Amino acid sequence: MNIGWKIWLTKDGSKIYGKGPKELLQRTEKMGSLRKAAMSMNMSYSKAWNLISNLEKSLGFKILDKTIGGVDGGSSTLTEEGKVLMSKYEDLEKRVEEAILKIFEETF
Amino acid sequence: MNIGWKIWLTKDGSKIYGKGPKELLQRTEKMGSLRKAAMSMNMSYSKAWNLISNLEKSLGFKILDKTIGGVDGGSSTLTEEGKVLMSKYEDLEKRVEEAILKIFEETF
Repeated sequence: MNIGWKIWLTKDGSKIYGKGPKELLQRTEKMGSLRKAAMSMNMSYSKAWNLISNLEKSLGFKILDKTIGGVDGGSSTLTEEGKVLMSKYEDLEKRVEEAILKIFEETF
Repeated sequence: MNIGWKIWLTKDGSKIYGKGPKELLQRTEKMGSLRKAAMSMNMSYSKAWNLISNLEKSLGFKILDKTIGGVDGGSSTLTEEGKVLMSKYEDLEKRVEEAILKIFEETF
């Protein structure tokens, strides 16, 4: 027997950050483009845009710096606060995993 | 901002126990009947029966003692091992909750 789990961040009772947004930000950072990141996840650009926009509204700070147009059709880079969010969440995930596995071992 | 989470038990990669089965067992214990418990959760009796049967197969022990027929149409009581499972899982849930909230406070 094993244990499974899922975590996410909420604001005012709504999910604002979890597996999907985390993946989107990771890919955006790597590819330098929200559009390319969304495409690589089979997510529409408008969905990705809304996701980031709602996240920024909930958190009260910018996650992405976007430049529009240009030869490469615009780019997106994570803001400092966006990077901090990503890194804190990865830390949270790692520590939650360790804690859950330990508790499971001790309980069952 | 807050944290949300969900946990469950798995066997060979499949979910075998979580929120739904826990509720079903709690109600069965209280009402003395798997059928009544299922009905009270808007779950079909065949679904409840399959759920318990698969759980018992996965765990390798009986969860419910069932008597069939009689004036009240049969009854179900939890076996000792079923009670231990319920109580261990409740303990697990409580400890996971405490750990997750603590980690969240420390991280964000």
